[in-house]
Order: sequence, then C-alpha cells, then structure tokens
Amino acid sequence: MIFKSILALMVLLPPFTFANQPLVIAHRGASGYLPDHTLAGKAMAHQMSPDFIEQDVVMTKDDQLVVLHDLYLNHNSDVAEKFPNRARADGKFYVIDFTFDELKTLRISSAFYNDANQIKAKYPRRFPLFSSVFSVHTFAQEIELIQGLNQVTGKQIGIYPEIKAPWFHQQQGKDITKAVLMELKKYGYQSKQDNIYLQSFDPVALKRIKTTLFAELNMQVKLVQLVAETNWQETQVLNNNTWTNYNYDTMLTKQGLQQVAQYADGIGPWHGSLIIEGRDKTQAIKQAKKIVSNAQTLGLVVHPYTFRKDDLPWYVNSYKDWVIMYKEKIHIDGIFTDFTAETIDILKASSDQ
Amino acid sequence: MIFKSILALMVLLPPFTFANQPLVIAHRGASGYLPDHTLAGKAMAHQMSPDFIEQDVVMTKDDQLVVLHDLYLNHNSDVAEKFPNRARADGKFYVIDFTFDELKTLRISSAFYNDANQIKAKYPRRFPLFSSVFSVHTFAQEIELIQGLNQVTGKQIGIYPEIKAPWFHQQQGKDITKAVLMELKKYGYQSKQDNIYLQSFDPVALKRIKTTLFAELNMQVKLVQLVAETNWQETQVLNNNTWTNYNYDTMLTKQGLQQVAQYADGIGPWHGSLIIEGRDKTQAIKQAKKIVSNAQTLGLVVHPYTFRKDDLPWYVNSYKDWVIMYKEKIHIDGIFTDFTAETIDILKASSDQ
Repeated sequence: MIFKSILALMVLLPPFTFANQPLVIAHRGASGYLPDHTLAGKAMAHQMSPDFIEQDVVMTKDDQLVVLHDLYLNHNSDVAEKFPNRARADGKFYVIDFTFDELKTLRISSAFYNDANQIKAKYPRRFPLFSSVFSVHTFAQEIELIQGLNQVTGKQIGIYPEIKAPWFHQQQGKDITKAVLMELKKYGYQSKQDNIYLQSFDPVALKRIKTTLFAELNMQVKLVQLVAETNWQETQVLNNNTWTNYNYDTMLTKQGLQQVAQYADGIGPWHGSLIIEGRDKTQAIKQAKKIVSNAQTLGLVVHPYTFRKDDLPWYVNSYKDWVIMYKEKIHIDGIFTDFTAETIDILKASSDQ
Repeated sequence: MIFKSILALMVLLPPFTFANQPLVIAHRGASGYLPDHTLAGKAMAHQMSPDFIEQDVVMTKDDQLVVLHDLYLNHNSDVAEKFPNRARADGKFYVIDFTFDELKTLRISSAFYNDANQIKAKYPRRFPLFSSVFSVHTFAQEIELIQGLNQVTGKQIGIYPEIKAPWFHQQQGKDITKAVLMELKKYGYQSKQDNIYLQSFDPVALKRIKTTLFAELNMQVKLVQLVAETNWQETQVLNNNTWTNYNYDTMLTKQGLQQVAQYADGIGPWHGSLIIEGRDKTQAIKQAKKIVSNAQTLGLVVHPYTFRKDDLPWYVNSYKDWVIMYKEKIHIDGIFTDFTAETIDILKASSDQ
C-alpha cells in the first residue's frame, strides 16, 4: 500500500524533481538571458527543464490577455517612440489603453530605465537593449508553446500564471480574473492535480476565485497568494467604497497565514520579507525558517521570489550559497528564479552529495 | 611549446567540443521541437549548446535578407490565405515576390503538405501545425540573437548560414551572395578564424566568393560546398547562355573533390550520397568512409546532412547507432541535425566510454 502510494507519487512528480528538492519556477521565462516574457525566452526556458514557467497576464483595450510583467510599457518597449501621445497624465503608457494589434507593432527589449534622456539597462550583464526582435504575445499563444513543447519533448512542464492587479483591471471596467480562469479551463487546466499554480497579489481576487468562480466555472486549480511589502503599494482594496492601499504587514504572521490558508494552497513571499535586512543574520534566518514552517504546518507551500545571480542579498556571497541556504536551512518548496539552468545545476549537485 | 599550442587550441575550441568529437550543427534551429528558422527555435537551440546554429538566407522583394528554408512559402505559412492572388504560374508563393513588411504578417508553422484539401504535418511527431505564434525574421535579427546569447551565457556558438540558390536570385535580378557577405562583415565575421561556416549548393557562387568577393570586400570566411543529388534539380548554371541543371554526379569522386578543394574548406554531402541505399551495407559504409577520407586528405572538412531521429536511414535501427556509426566508422567532422540535444548527449556518452 505504501509502495503503491510512492509509485503514484513518483508518476505525479515533474521530471526533474527529487524528494525534498524545491520546485524551480522559470521567472518570466529565461529572463537572465533573454527579455522577459518573450516566446524565445519561454522556449529557451523550456529547454532548461524547470518545473514551471511563469506568465504575468494583463488585459488589453480589446479584452485580449497578453503576457507582460508591468501594467505599462515604459520600461521594456519602444512605445514612447511609436505612440508618443498615448501616455496617461502620470506619464505611463498602459497596456490596457492599447489594442492587441497595436501592441504587436511594439519592439520588446530587456528592461531599461531613463537616465538623463538616455536609456540604461536595468541589469547591465543581460541581453542587450533593443537587440534582435521580440514582440508581445497572448496568454493563449504562450500556453500553446509550452503544451506543444511538452508534447514533442515528453517533458511535463507546468504553467504558473499571475493575474496582474485584478483591482486595477476592475477599476478600468474589466474582469481579468474570470477571463484568465476561462482561458485556463479552455486549455485543460481545471483541477488541483493539473500542472499549474495560479498566483496573484490580490487577496480579494483570490478569495473570489475560491468562493465564487471555481463553482461558477466548474473548475479548480492550486492558488498562490503573493506577498508584497505594504509600501510597494502593490494592491488596492475597496474600503467603504474607497480604493486604499492593501496592508500586507500581518500576512506572514501565524494569524495572517491562517487567513491565507482559508483560500490558497501556497504563498509567494518576497525573499526580503523572509530574511529581513538589517537584523542579526542568524536571527533573521531563524525567523524566515519559522515563517516557512508555520505556513507548511497550515498546508501551504512556500515559493519565494526572485532569485537572481546578478542581484544577491546582503547575507550571501554567491548565488550557490543563496540557493542552498533556502533549500537546506529554510526548507522552501519552490523558488522563482531568473537563472533556471544554474539553479537546477546547483540543486542537482546538492542532491548528488 | 607543444603544451602552449594545446592550451591555445583549447581556448579556440567551442565549449562542448572534445578531441575527435564531430561538430554539432543545429539544423534550422531546434527543428525537431519547434518550427524551422523561428527565433524561439534558435533560442532553444542555443540552450542545447551546439557548435553552430544554421541559417538559410533568402532575399525579399525589397532586398532584405530573411531566414527561411524554401524559396517559397507554401509549406510553412498561411500565405495562401493571407495573399491568395500572389502565387506564380507554378502555384508557388515566392519569398522574393513579397516585401519584408508583408512577410512579417504571415504566421509560420511546422512544415506541412497538402493532401485532399487538407494540410498534414510533414513530421507528425513534431510541434503542432499553426500552434502558438511564429513569424519571419531577418538574418541580422538572428545574428543579434545568437551574439547576444553568446554574450550573456559565455558560450561561443557559431553561425552556419546557407546562401539559398544564388543562381535563382541572379535570375530575378538580385545579388544575394554579396549582400550576405556584407552582412557577415558588418557583424564581425570576416576571417577564417571567425566562428562561421558559409555554405551553398551553388559552386559558381562559391567560386565567385573565393576569387572575387573576398578581395573586393577585404574579408574571408570558411566555405562549405553543399552536395546534392543531380535529380533534385537543386542548382542551375549558365551553359552557353542557357540555364541548365547542375550535375553533381562526380563531385564526390577524387577528381570532383580536388576541384572543390580549390575554393572550399569543406563539403556538406547528403548522408544518402555517402552510404548509398540498395548496396551491400558493408560495402556502402566502406565507400562512405573512402569519400570522407579522400575529402579530408585534401584538407576538406565533411559535415553531412541531415540527422533526424524521426527519419532513420535503411542501415540503422536507432538514432544513437546512426550517430555513433558516422562518428566512429565514417569519421565525419560535423553533423547537421534536427535533434541537437539528443545528438550531444549521444556524443558525450560515447566520449566518456
């Protein structure tokens, strides 16, 4: 009986998962090597054999779901050149103000920022700005890429979509949450056993999915509550008919996690919210371990973001040490990374020992 | 001194090359897994770490160099639907009849053929027809992708462009050969030491490059003469002002190879021209070995095409046996393959033994 269960478990596990090995989630594709959320990056990521490939999903003016990280296009496209008069008063060119046909005309680049009228690479050692050619694609097109590659390679790589700012889409009169769920169902993601985690920072949207939309659409998928720092102003919620900044301060406390466990299957905390800068290192790690263990006791998986070898935190000197610490000391269940290939190599080497 | 030379040699070798290990050339990208000549396929191929990634280069109506295998678009795009009235009398939609802006509107697919008004996959186990989204890109955009990925990964993967049918482009009033060379020089490929082989089926074009264009453009790159079967009608040459089918029948004889060695650094024969079907297997292999050894004696490298695990020849029962035979019995210098990852795995395992 136990033997049978172990066999069943082995069949369910993705190809490169070992016992006690954290899941590897390819953050925005192969973003250490190619611009975020490009199909070329997703194909490259697939070849690295992560457990999941991540999508950020935003809605267009004509209600298409597209895969882009930001709600606006200022820092990864030539939108300011192609559509100079389409920024809002805050200077941002919002995805939601463009049709998909308009978005398709944009050139997508590695991320940049503006400095004295020049653009500069956010990560200088990554793919050069505006080199080669990349464009915006739909959520459906990305799912077809991953499912097609799964079919031809025999791998079973899952998807890990984030519904971007459901509250913002609601303010703009759009129901992105329901649209994403319908697309997932259309492509066969409809039970907790399917190879997907669906994530959002917005607890109101996640509760709505759990309590209303799953029943309405006759489906279920695993849900992950992303956790921000309150001062990022990541999420707005309605309080007495007023949109106000959501307060994440207590979400990682025991009580906060108990709330999350009511509607989600996991949490996606920022690594900086687990091991907090400025504290004593040993104490900070102990605290992180406690949060993770509290979450796991409640049945929540823990998938912190984002592990970048070109952006190490204060408490480690190498990317390898960082990954190994989170695996062996903090005991996380999964890891969002821009460097999937290196992360898998590190984890494999650590399990060989 | 010898030690120093070995060190120098090691630095020059691509990352995964071992002594006596044939070069792996990713044929049309990752074509076993994604449609030919798509940027997503090239990015995926890059992650597999071949020695070279192949491009087929064709010219558009507005003199852009694009990466496409065929001179026409019938078997890998929706051209018949998007531009129904643009076929020539022979029913073919020629790349050269379209501007690059027109080509960009096409959807690219895995290869198909028409059967009773239905399209059917040429290779049924490959990426599904018209799934996800892929489009035509320029030669420059592909070089930028590969050079950018080399920069961020530290790999040194070369390019292996084929000038498609220079004779055809000449008939249409275009000089594709010179245009390709100028693009190569622009991107830094200009000496025999650079990480490139330039290939063509057209011996007239290759001789022109060697005797005229290299001097005119003050550059040199390694040249490979592709070898076809005469009855494919691959190449036309001018005989007494008449375009006639070029005869490849003697190209792989000792005398033929001596001719090729006058202008080229290598040959790219069809594997079926080396080990000829219908003959006694042992004799056929011996004959192939003789051709390869004759070529190598003349200083020519030998890179046969195309190794596909879903299209095995008559004399082997597995892809692995095929690759190992060509490496260990025929002693080829390189291999064009649709299945780069599997081929590298096979070669690595064989060198570990």
